[in-house]
Amino acid sequence: MTEDHDHEGDGHHDPDRDTFSHDPVGHAEVRAGMTVGELADEYGNAGVGAADLHEAVDVTEAMFDDDVTVFFGLAGAMVPTGMRAIVADLIRDGYIDVLVTTGANLTHDSIEAIGGKHHHGAAHAEGKTEREHDETLRDEGVDRIYNVYLPQEFFATFESHLREEVFPVLEEEGVVPIQRLTEELGRANAEINEREDVDEDAGIAAAAYENDVPIYCPAIQDSVLGLQAWMYSQTSDFSLDALADMTGLTDIAYDTEEAGAFVVGGGVPKNFTLQTMLVTPGAYDYAVQLTMDPKQTGGLSGATLDEARSWGKLETDADNVSVYADATITLPLVVAAARERLENRS
Amino acid sequence: MTEDHDHEGDGHHDPDRDTFSHDPVGHAEVRAGMTVGELADEYGNAGVGAADLHEAVDVTEAMFDDDVTVFFGLAGAMVPTGMRAIVADLIRDGYIDVLVTTGANLTHDSIEAIGGKHHHGAAHAEGKTEREHDETLRDEGVDRIYNVYLPQEFFATFESHLREEVFPVLEEEGVVPIQRLTEELGRANAEINEREDVDEDAGIAAAAYENDVPIYCPAIQDSVLGLQAWMYSQTSDFSLDALADMTGLTDIAYDTEEAGAFVVGGGVPKNFTLQTMLVTPGAYDYAVQLTMDPKQTGGLSGATLDEARSWGKLETDADNVSVYADATITLPLVVAAARERLENRS
Amino acid sequence: MTEDHDHEGDGHHDPDRDTFSHDPVGHAEVRAGMTVGELADEYGNAGVGAADLHEAVDVTEAMFDDDVTVFFGLAGAMVPTGMRAIVADLIRDGYIDVLVTTGANLTHDSIEAIGGKHHHGAAHAEGKTEREHDETLRDEGVDRIYNVYLPQEFFATFESHLREEVFPVLEEEGVVPIQRLTEELGRANAEINEREDVDEDAGIAAAAYENDVPIYCPAIQDSVLGLQAWMYSQTSDFSLDALADMTGLTDIAYDTEEAGAFVVGGGVPKNFTLQTMLVTPGAYDYAVQLTMDPKQTGGLSGATLDEARSWGKLETDADNVSVYADATITLPLVVAAARERLENRS
Amino acid sequence: MTEDHDHEGDGHHDPDRDTFSHDPVGHAEVRAGMTVGELADEYGNAGVGAADLHEAVDVTEAMFDDDVTVFFGLAGAMVPTGMRAIVADLIRDGYIDVLVTTGANLTHDSIEAIGGKHHHGAAHAEGKTEREHDETLRDEGVDRIYNVYLPQEFFATFESHLREEVFPVLEEEGVVPIQRLTEELGRANAEINEREDVDEDAGIAAAAYENDVPIYCPAIQDSVLGLQAWMYSQTSDFSLDALADMTGLTDIAYDTEEAGAFVVGGGVPKNFTLQTMLVTPGAYDYAVQLTMDPKQTGGLSGATLDEARSWGKLETDADNVSVYADATITLPLVVAAARERLENRS
Repeated sequence: MTEDHDHEGDGHHDPDRDTFSHDPVGHAEVRAGMTVGELADEYGNAGVGAADLHEAVDVTEAMFDDDVTVFFGLAGAMVPTGMRAIVADLIRDGYIDVLVTTGANLTHDSIEAIGGKHHHGAAHAEGKTEREHDETLRDEGVDRIYNVYLPQEFFATFESHLREEVFPVLEEEGVVPIQRLTEELGRANAEINEREDVDEDAGIAAAAYENDVPIYCPAIQDSVLGLQAWMYSQTSDFSLDALADMTGLTDIAYDTEEAGAFVVGGGVPKNFTLQTMLVTPGAYDYAVQLTMDPKQTGGLSGATLDEARSWGKLETDADNVSVYADATITLPLVVAAARERLENRS
Repeated sequence: MTEDHDHEGDGHHDPDRDTFSHDPVGHAEVRAGMTVGELADEYGNAGVGAADLHEAVDVTEAMFDDDVTVFFGLAGAMVPTGMRAIVADLIRDGYIDVLVTTGANLTHDSIEAIGGKHHHGAAHAEGKTEREHDETLRDEGVDRIYNVYLPQEFFATFESHLREEVFPVLEEEGVVPIQRLTEELGRANAEINEREDVDEDAGIAAAAYENDVPIYCPAIQDSVLGLQAWMYSQTSDFSLDALADMTGLTDIAYDTEEAGAFVVGGGVPKNFTLQTMLVTPGAYDYAVQLTMDPKQTGGLSGATLDEARSWGKLETDADNVSVYADATITLPLVVAAARERLENRS
Repeated sequence: MTEDHDHEGDGHHDPDRDTFSHDPVGHAEVRAGMTVGELADEYGNAGVGAADLHEAVDVTEAMFDDDVTVFFGLAGAMVPTGMRAIVADLIRDGYIDVLVTTGANLTHDSIEAIGGKHHHGAAHAEGKTEREHDETLRDEGVDRIYNVYLPQEFFATFESHLREEVFPVLEEEGVVPIQRLTEELGRANAEINEREDVDEDAGIAAAAYENDVPIYCPAIQDSVLGLQAWMYSQTSDFSLDALADMTGLTDIAYDTEEAGAFVVGGGVPKNFTLQTMLVTPGAYDYAVQLTMDPKQTGGLSGATLDEARSWGKLETDADNVSVYADATITLPLVVAAARERLENRS
Repeated sequence: MTEDHDHEGDGHHDPDRDTFSHDPVGHAEVRAGMTVGELADEYGNAGVGAADLHEAVDVTEAMFDDDVTVFFGLAGAMVPTGMRAIVADLIRDGYIDVLVTTGANLTHDSIEAIGGKHHHGAAHAEGKTEREHDETLRDEGVDRIYNVYLPQEFFATFESHLREEVFPVLEEEGVVPIQRLTEELGRANAEINEREDVDEDAGIAAAAYENDVPIYCPAIQDSVLGLQAWMYSQTSDFSLDALADMTGLTDIAYDTEEAGAFVVGGGVPKNFTLQTMLVTPGAYDYAVQLTMDPKQTGGLSGATLDEARSWGKLETDADNVSVYADATITLPLVVAAARERLENRS
């Protein structure tokens, strides 16, 4: 349980009573064949991170309600590390209304949409130090992301895809918002995925395109996608406007009845998702953060959601919780449990 | 995936091929109503921590087989934070053969066995800084363990329990091994729990007593249980032998056909579990570690299991994996998934 | 010592000898009045993080040589947490050739240049939970960054500064590279700081302007500076080009004889600093990273520098080291020690 | 700044004023040749971890005063990673009154006292994975502690030392307190170090013996020292009492005028140092903790010192601070800075 999770903070606390809530720790129980939703309920009996996780399922369930506009922040390594299908499914099933992510995620998402593959590798290979191993990978044309490998040949395929299917369409529009690029990328990914009968999910950008979910990518320059866009801009009138996305994003924020922020990891996707509320009258009513960054460093990535309250990014009475554990473990868990609850209701 | 988890490290690697294993990342998928075992299988499609967690389920499944003697190390905060029933059930169902733990866990386990209760609290209370909050708790006689509260009155009940039901039996035996104390504690907890019809699991020590699972607690002095034993020893001939437990423990280690170490958290329970193999001819064939301590500090708690191989604590060809994430989340998850696989087999 | 730090990895290793280097741990010694450089030398006698820190001083000393072009990546919280003067001094004294940073750092740097002040606060205030505390700060118009406070009134002063001194100049140029904005910001900060006789260092942007050090800020949208720019763009022809900075940056990278990357924290500044080498023939010859993010999550912020080698961002034989500890502690330490060595040489 | 460090928490706060203390962040400055004490002063101008570190120097300076009895907790990896001389010097110079540590530290300390050596190694060696590397080290008889190596032959030398110089003396005394063993070990280390003219500091245990500083090691079983003691006990009347040390330790605690706890790392040394105050009327007046364990897991090692206040281990008005960063970096820094202040006073 973090600072954000506050059993007695929900109006149930009687200030004349003891400061603790007479809410006994019941101990988690597990059994063969239990569902993920049942496991999440058991976490609610325990303390520390388990209690946070249970609270995150509660807040996510409330946030995934139809009346709440969900802004989803997705940090960099989540696509190459295997979280792509979970996010694409959430978009397709209407749980996400706005996606804020990195150029890296869009690059890796697109590479798979057009037939490329990431591979399970090792942080260290047999017969090598980490340093030697990476020298060898360099020689062999393989890029490493911790224990995931990507053959560099797929960057060439990605380049062709962009130069043939994406950039020419945009070139005619001159300097366009970054969100226009992500939209066209989604369209092109969806089309080529279907055309080439790739035995693979068309992915996040394609799902977003097909469901009118805008994708914002404020640090686009900081990715292979951005490098390709820059190289194309060198020989054409095409370029991207670094400010224009705020217009569409704040328009959405203005129009929300209730707003929720679901933030996976930190970095720009987290801050950009939260700061939107600095230029709108409202603030987030719900917020869930899955992170492994420590809060004591003062860095934005590990900062508590309460801190965001001082800035006016969260409503004073928002429901918010942070889970400090590996997001590749907690994201599937929270989503499966929240969906179990939501889809069992209907 | 940590260093320990090595898809190509199990003899399947063809050195003439590329250094990566052509094992594509398939992306995790989740759906409403899936079981925990199904979720664990999905983690196997992803990378980083999710892949580690999947591997941990594989190794745990192999380790929980009847032919493997399982040494289970349980670090300090796991009972007050709600992991008590999971461990007690594993003992009752025959999955654990030896338990190594702390005096703190035995203290908190016993308090619940005799009718005391931990409570969900908050790391910070309304209207207080953390410091002020803890001053208030002090005044009110409530001890805090992060976000779990324990009223100090239960320590008095625990003291009576020890002085009436446990220490007198041991006093006649003089200086006894620490394991004799944990055994008598388990017996007394089981008896009083039944006698007083406490509506609560009799717990870990009781389950261990009833199933002939020895509990080792090398740092007994470093706990309220140890303080109580010391105070009793001041006015009696009773004391505890700080070395005698090694005899029973190494006898068990000598007699194993295959041995597995399942280590939750770090500290003395981890090291004591592993070092047993320094004075026996064999070593662990299987090892799983659930920890949130970083490995780069050089501390024992976060050290990789590969490091233990250099000391001869693990067999050269042992299956081992470390999951770096909050253990109150990962322990229920790994146990539920492994039990699902094992109990579906039969 | 991390993976990157490899006493025997520099060609001095005799494969016929034992695998360890007969380089005994000599134990650090400290004494009253020793210099920071002497302390750094003592770290070299120790292991783990201390040895990394010593190695970081070695690599920094080599990198700060006149012949090496230094690209300095500065993540978000470093200015509000007090690292502003150290970075500004490094620029003034010629140690930094290119700065990559965040809009947040430039915002906080500028606020101080024009007379605003950050304040030492508390992560929690007396008489409040973290949540309540942040609600109060919100009411009082104070933004919190962990334990640093910033009164929101300074954001209004900053807005006037931008609208009067910075944006009008740029407006005439139409859609400009982001680096043009940071350059004008530096000019304006220097001028107003002098004009208003602010008793405060004119700061990082001003120092960069005065020393022809370009500042790149790829995620400009993701900051109060970016929000202000966006609001100004709503009623003018002014906007920023999201791609154009790559041109200037890669030109510098092409022209380097030797290149060094000094990266404080992770996020966009780290990745953008490193990825520059993907579109140039060379790669970094030296790299130092000060971070507190763990590497096992797969996130970019904690990723080792060896991983960057697989991508071709570091030369195969680059000297590189990562220090995993609070950067507000390690940055002053490494810089003071490296400067002691360099300035004692001359 | 952690929860513990509270500029406005010391009575200087005017509740009618703003909630922040108008204590501007002044920014750290560094220069070539500055002393470590001057660097520590600069940290006080910054925020986050740097401010904690500055506060730790303040509290350490107050605690190292003659009138304060200092209980020093030293976790396991600190001797093999090179902190041995710093601790031994603190004992010799009268700054430490009671040492609580692990059998591992005493083992490694003694090995160096009698002429053995730890070596700088690598977490991974050239031409090996971590796993293969550790298999090779196993074959070569070298134990690895992260990036420090210890040839196993020194364990044999250590065994002889214990069997010839230490255990026979104790054997005559029967079942003795663990502190008697650490005392005899210190005597024997000092003697053999002098006799054999080892060109090495006689170390921590020897310094403690020579300065009448008792060493408590509650988890003695959990170390090579403990294994050796157990093996000797198998064929003799010698054994160790697991409870008796509490008597001497609480006697010291009862007699203190003011008490300080300086805790490096977590585990048993931290808890045992703090819990002493549970059975004495007083509590710690000063406490400094250097740790890299996160507090959000609920584990004891990362727990805040405020939490200890709820248990009555710290006085309500104690000065306490936790620094969350690599202790091999922060211990030398804090000690050098505090000694500079103290020794400049005199």
